[in-house]
Amino acid sequence: MTAPSAPVNHFGDRLAETVRARSNPVVVGLDPHLGSLPAGLLPHGCRDPRIQADAVAAFCQGVIDAVAGLVPAVKPQSAFFEQIGPEGMSALRQVIQAAADAGLLIILDAKRGDIGSTASAYASGLLGPGATSAWGADALTVNPYLGGDSLDPFMETARDRGGGVFILVKTSNTGGGLFQDLVADGLPVYRHVARWVEAQAEATLGTCGFGIIGAVTGATWPGQLAELRGAMPHAWLLVPGYGAQGGGAREVAAAFHSNGLGAIVNSSRGIIFAHARPDYRDRYPPDRWQDAVREAAVEMIEDLRSHTAAGRLVS
Amino acid sequence: MTAPSAPVNHFGDRLAETVRARSNPVVVGLDPHLGSLPAGLLPHGCRDPRIQADAVAAFCQGVIDAVAGLVPAVKPQSAFFEQIGPEGMSALRQVIQAAADAGLLIILDAKRGDIGSTASAYASGLLGPGATSAWGADALTVNPYLGGDSLDPFMETARDRGGGVFILVKTSNTGGGLFQDLVADGLPVYRHVARWVEAQAEATLGTCGFGIIGAVTGATWPGQLAELRGAMPHAWLLVPGYGAQGGGAREVAAAFHSNGLGAIVNSSRGIIFAHARPDYRDRYPPDRWQDAVREAAVEMIEDLRSHTAAGRLVS
Repeated sequence: MTAPSAPVNHFGDRLAETVRARSNPVVVGLDPHLGSLPAGLLPHGCRDPRIQADAVAAFCQGVIDAVAGLVPAVKPQSAFFEQIGPEGMSALRQVIQAAADAGLLIILDAKRGDIGSTASAYASGLLGPGATSAWGADALTVNPYLGGDSLDPFMETARDRGGGVFILVKTSNTGGGLFQDLVADGLPVYRHVARWVEAQAEATLGTCGFGIIGAVTGATWPGQLAELRGAMPHAWLLVPGYGAQGGGAREVAAAFHSNGLGAIVNSSRGIIFAHARPDYRDRYPPDRWQDAVREAAVEMIEDLRSHTAAGRLVS
Repeated sequence: MTAPSAPVNHFGDRLAETVRARSNPVVVGLDPHLGSLPAGLLPHGCRDPRIQADAVAAFCQGVIDAVAGLVPAVKPQSAFFEQIGPEGMSALRQVIQAAADAGLLIILDAKRGDIGSTASAYASGLLGPGATSAWGADALTVNPYLGGDSLDPFMETARDRGGGVFILVKTSNTGGGLFQDLVADGLPVYRHVARWVEAQAEATLGTCGFGIIGAVTGATWPGQLAELRGAMPHAWLLVPGYGAQGGGAREVAAAFHSNGLGAIVNSSRGIIFAHARPDYRDRYPPDRWQDAVREAAVEMIEDLRSHTAAGRLVS
């Protein structure tokens, strides 16, 4: 049933397969804030970057162990590794390798963007699974402000390597509208970006019905989520903002197609730091933080299955 | 003569002092394309990231040695270090340290941008001279697409540490207008961004008449450069696109105030790979590539002094 035009390593298809295999669309965001790590991982007030990096790597490995086989993907946030310095970047590389070894897809949240050969350098280094790139991410988040020719190198690299690209379309922060919501030619800027994404998604369709390019669309704007689902029928939507940022399953429901595909939903703090949540901390002492991670992931999976079309993924 | 409201470590003032001390506004872009390094630095076809990183660090050290005392600043491009992997990031840290030791200001061209605590993590790690941050950059380039509240953490960190922020306003690539030129409320999107930058620059003025926030404004659009100089009278303009990208001194002249301050002009390939330029390569064998770097920097300095208000910096 595989169409000859869709190679087996098409990112949209790989994502669809993995979402179907796990019967849920949950992405666990790896945002290792140093100040929020479970007690015992990092000596209080420690400023040594090597020790910080080791703690972050151990913490992310623990999260990966807790959610492997359960969710389709993780999303390491580059900022929390860069913050530590070069040692943090070595930890990021380790974490990506550990996630790949655990059978998780890796969406590196780095929001890169530049022009010409510089964009090519970012794409070449960061984007591409396994040994196809230095960092080994399956997909990369990219900022569209620099225009179409700045995005082309990411698309080309993704196509060559079976990788994916998620373009920032509409972000979940309260101030995200300052430039994204400016109306030009009757449409907000974010809809112009969405139009570009949809054209590229349609041009790179896999057998799953989606392309290799997706969109980041904030969950704190549910009306806009329905609008963006309609505007980009062939794009995977990466929806942040579930949980700690205020969105629930009902808020993200509009991001899905009726077959349960088309959207993946990220939660970071609500899962990885579940041991510190008011509704969890009485049950989970610090040394059982991984159990809290697993329970929070299961809870989110059930929530999405109950209140969105993701329930149709369960056979 | 120092106003009490302006601390000595105000980035705008530090930049003005350094530009005045060198009597020129040249920024040397450190874009170490592996394929363009002078012969002898990297074995042909070498794929070992440690050897690649060492070659890049040695090359950048050589450029720094050639231009130290001559130009006010260097601009390492993060992409070319990230491309190598974690080893490349260690090289980036070394290069920043080497530039600081040589008395050069460091503008890290990373075009970061994210929301909330993630933006704070980027700012905290990347932005701040010397030991105030893990990486040690004096200033950082930042992408505005995520809106004002995504930029605030960069501004706060810059203010606290004597650092600077350059916001992408108008980029020099041919496709840069796809979203930047969309007209909303009678102004292109990039002018809305410029308005935000000017307000922040005016709110953080130093004794030099400029704030701690500047703008990246492409030199391949000379008409827009004059327009943007007028729209952001209190912002330092970082002008890329000189040389290899097609802009010359006459094209960038409109970016300067009449006293010769207010703009810094970047050239990357045209200086660091001068040994391979058609007009240089007959005179410079590979082992004299540093002499070519120095001559190209001097040539650019003279060009800007002759055809822009930067000539007034020469006492």
